[in-house]
Amino acid sequence: MAAKKILVLGGALSGPAAATRARETDPEAEITLVGRAKGVNPALDALALRLSGEVSDSRRLEPRRPGYYRNVYGIEVKTGVTVQAIDAEKKKVKTDDGTLAYDALVYALGAQTVWPEVDGLEGASNASALDSVKDLRRVEQLLKQGKKKPPVTILGGGPTGVAAADALARRGAKVTLVEHSRQLLPGFSAPAAARAAKALEARGVEVWLSAAPDVAHRRKRRVRQIQLTDGRTVDTELVLVATGIAPRSELLAEAGAELRDDRTVAIDERCATTLPDVYAAGGVVASVHAITRKPVWTGSAADADKSAQVAGANAAGGERTLSPTLGTTIVRAGDLTLARAGQTSPDLRISIVPGTPTDRSLGDRSKVALTLYFDPKERLRGAEAFGTGGVVERIRVLATAAQGKLRLEQLADLDLGHAATHGPVRDVVNVAGRVASRGVAPVVPWRAVDLDPPPEGVMVIDVRASKARKRGRNAPAGAKHIRLPRLREKAKDFQSQKWVVFVCDTGREAYLAATIAHGLGVNEPGYLSGGLAHFDAELERPV
Amino acid sequence: MAAKKILVLGGALSGPAAATRARETDPEAEITLVGRAKGVNPALDALALRLSGEVSDSRRLEPRRPGYYRNVYGIEVKTGVTVQAIDAEKKKVKTDDGTLAYDALVYALGAQTVWPEVDGLEGASNASALDSVKDLRRVEQLLKQGKKKPPVTILGGGPTGVAAADALARRGAKVTLVEHSRQLLPGFSAPAAARAAKALEARGVEVWLSAAPDVAHRRKRRVRQIQLTDGRTVDTELVLVATGIAPRSELLAEAGAELRDDRTVAIDERCATTLPDVYAAGGVVASVHAITRKPVWTGSAADADKSAQVAGANAAGGERTLSPTLGTTIVRAGDLTLARAGQTSPDLRISIVPGTPTDRSLGDRSKVALTLYFDPKERLRGAEAFGTGGVVERIRVLATAAQGKLRLEQLADLDLGHAATHGPVRDVVNVAGRVASRGVAPVVPWRAVDLDPPPEGVMVIDVRASKARKRGRNAPAGAKHIRLPRLREKAKDFQSQKWVVFVCDTGREAYLAATIAHGLGVNEPGYLSGGLAHFDAELERPV
Repeated sequence: MAAKKILVLGGALSGPAAATRARETDPEAEITLVGRAKGVNPALDALALRLSGEVSDSRRLEPRRPGYYRNVYGIEVKTGVTVQAIDAEKKKVKTDDGTLAYDALVYALGAQTVWPEVDGLEGASNASALDSVKDLRRVEQLLKQGKKKPPVTILGGGPTGVAAADALARRGAKVTLVEHSRQLLPGFSAPAAARAAKALEARGVEVWLSAAPDVAHRRKRRVRQIQLTDGRTVDTELVLVATGIAPRSELLAEAGAELRDDRTVAIDERCATTLPDVYAAGGVVASVHAITRKPVWTGSAADADKSAQVAGANAAGGERTLSPTLGTTIVRAGDLTLARAGQTSPDLRISIVPGTPTDRSLGDRSKVALTLYFDPKERLRGAEAFGTGGVVERIRVLATAAQGKLRLEQLADLDLGHAATHGPVRDVVNVAGRVASRGVAPVVPWRAVDLDPPPEGVMVIDVRASKARKRGRNAPAGAKHIRLPRLREKAKDFQSQKWVVFVCDTGREAYLAATIAHGLGVNEPGYLSGGLAHFDAELERPV
Repeated sequence: MAAKKILVLGGALSGPAAATRARETDPEAEITLVGRAKGVNPALDALALRLSGEVSDSRRLEPRRPGYYRNVYGIEVKTGVTVQAIDAEKKKVKTDDGTLAYDALVYALGAQTVWPEVDGLEGASNASALDSVKDLRRVEQLLKQGKKKPPVTILGGGPTGVAAADALARRGAKVTLVEHSRQLLPGFSAPAAARAAKALEARGVEVWLSAAPDVAHRRKRRVRQIQLTDGRTVDTELVLVATGIAPRSELLAEAGAELRDDRTVAIDERCATTLPDVYAAGGVVASVHAITRKPVWTGSAADADKSAQVAGANAAGGERTLSPTLGTTIVRAGDLTLARAGQTSPDLRISIVPGTPTDRSLGDRSKVALTLYFDPKERLRGAEAFGTGGVVERIRVLATAAQGKLRLEQLADLDLGHAATHGPVRDVVNVAGRVASRGVAPVVPWRAVDLDPPPEGVMVIDVRASKARKRGRNAPAGAKHIRLPRLREKAKDFQSQKWVVFVCDTGREAYLAATIAHGLGVNEPGYLSGGLAHFDAELERPV
């Protein structure tokens, strides 16, 4: 029998991963990898770290030489080749370098930025996306030509736009970030997104929310000014387009493959498309969500890599199935890191707990706040974290916990070990699990939105010390003030109330007050989860 | 009915945790907390960070004022009181400040260093343990009196001794670390322990293994020289005793409570002792191991805190059960951090994988190596990690994975998200899971000890490039050399062998070679797990 011909389309991250896995599965196959560009594209934040000037070593962005794949894996690599059409019936792929036949095909052409329809934007010589090393070099070039502190406009406030804004602000550019919706970072909660905006503003970035570009005014081929739909304008020397990425699925659709509504290629759990012997992987496919079990397109490099391995193995005759995703996302915005994992939909129960990523006794001022999302049986479904330290570690622990279906009680008791440089004896993950679980005391976390204003019949008690109260944020209108140490002696003031909700700056003292109130006979006492600091951000109403 | 009298013995970490949890459970109880010292004792590494001079803020080591517990929790605190005897029948505790009656008792007197029987050591004015803030201040005082670079002898190479050696070396002392067994850090693997010794030596610490102190030669009350059983001597200005800690369980034993063989107090899952209405918690009790389900005494601050919460709640009439421990341990030794979690016994299957805690493209030189321990069904049982970066994050993720009973395959596909500053797209945790799992390719990890020397009939193939081979460690005697890129064309040289094991520096290329060899028809090809670097350390034979 002749060797099986496996053709892999896509020379970036997913293509090579699929091709090498195919080789491990079938040692005899003729494997050919076709790539449009010459380079591999690292994940977004590696590009951003170069854009910011924090990492200068750009040699490492060079791809492995085709010879490496040939010698080690016996894979034929064709770079600089563009795919033009796929004939699924005849099992042939037409390229600008001739026609290639296949027995099995892996389609891994990735995703790319979708440019918004703005008059004058397309074709402008000073507008670019940030999808690839090529884009990075182009942007670098444009920045070098400009002023010392060039005005840059970034369209789109998703992870790409935020990372780019952060990087360019670090480099000294005057950045305006324009986002059409009411918050940055869809997929993150409103309070987290509000913190991200503030952190960027602290670095000098202008964040314009609920703002859409209308016209790009050009002089010759260069955009000089962006006009928004509400009439405002912003002068600019460079426009970075980050309004969202979409799968490059057209060629497969033209060949007759079924697409999903989000334009990803429809695949089964083996990454097989609806075309015979055609597999799809990487940025063109969705993964199944580990918690909701629904298909979800994350655009994440980690997910792309996983589907590539499955598609490659199966194209070579293997039997692997695609593992689920948690949609884990990590974004940097100024001094703040934000991260999320799992299911964080607003219909789940939540608990917000602030803490420190190091032992308080070390005097480090970093902070990290966790929001847990869980079901009525107290099983962890997802989490969000933001702060100035320890965020990535905490979200990875919580992602692993969600994958392992841990209950809040188990999270409270999880043995994370202890290192003062990595947290207090009771880590914020443990505290979050304990506070969220109703096992200890039947106290109820309240959300800021439910106290703005407090509903009829709810007594709000501010338990902060007078000094903290003067310095801190305002309590909800009509709040009573009883300092925590006086709670017992003032019990009569609230014992007979039907609904009592305690508030403080962080949620910590208020939680304690609620457990004490429970002991004093109050039924289901509440506390403002996350505290007034969080409250403020959550209630912020962007223009 | 009169309020229940709850008495908590122990003013350090566990006592207050038990007392406050008791209050949350019973709002009416009369709760009294009795402590010998005035301060709380932070966990060991917080002390070490002060000893090293890295943290100067010592105010934060002060305890919360008794008034805090009184006002907030309604807990009566008696400090500076020493417990003398417990009468379990009459439910009374005799102290140097009078007799206290109880309805329920929580015994949380903690653990303390056991001094070795060395002539002249006990009572010496310049010998100290490092159990408490008091000890820390004493050591500080002694160091100030001495030379600029004082010779310090540390007895005991467990976590306390290693942390102290690290701290004192950072401060500029001339440290000799004396450990009676053949390796530092029992509970860690021999290769990890060997790395710790090297890392300390790189900081100027002299590490003496298989060495036991015999006589402490004194001038007046000061030890001037320590003589070892093998005749060697070391001059010293300060002796730090870290030969191990033991539970302070005597008083409870005298009162008739049952102890276990390791001198911990025998408790049930509710932390109840064999005496009526007496609970024990903190350093005096063992926890159940989450994986082996056997009782294990870890001495960990995190475990102490957990049992304290359970004992406190149940003393007040609650119904909580003690959660299991993973024995998670984190130790710093020079530039190296070492950590372990779960079951890491040598009879389990293991896989050693080196990686980087940041994306390689950033040019960071930090490294982290993981060893996974798993059962025949490929369920994770435990892990060990060491390296110069990202160790704590990885061990916490793996501890959570072990708690969630994740399989290697799930670990391989775990969605940890991606941040270049926190690892490559395929995190070392993912790679470790993939490599260890036999799902992809039936290749076999070999351990260094099994190749020293290679058994009859085993062909060892060194796949490193010539340059790497010259620079790197020696391959096992008789190894053949075939560079990875030439493996396919040289297939005939090894295809007919019954056993083939590939080796390289890190294990990475060797693993790849094994998967290729599998494709070339070799049955169950092997690779040296962890590579020759690890090999070397594992085979190191301390004096």
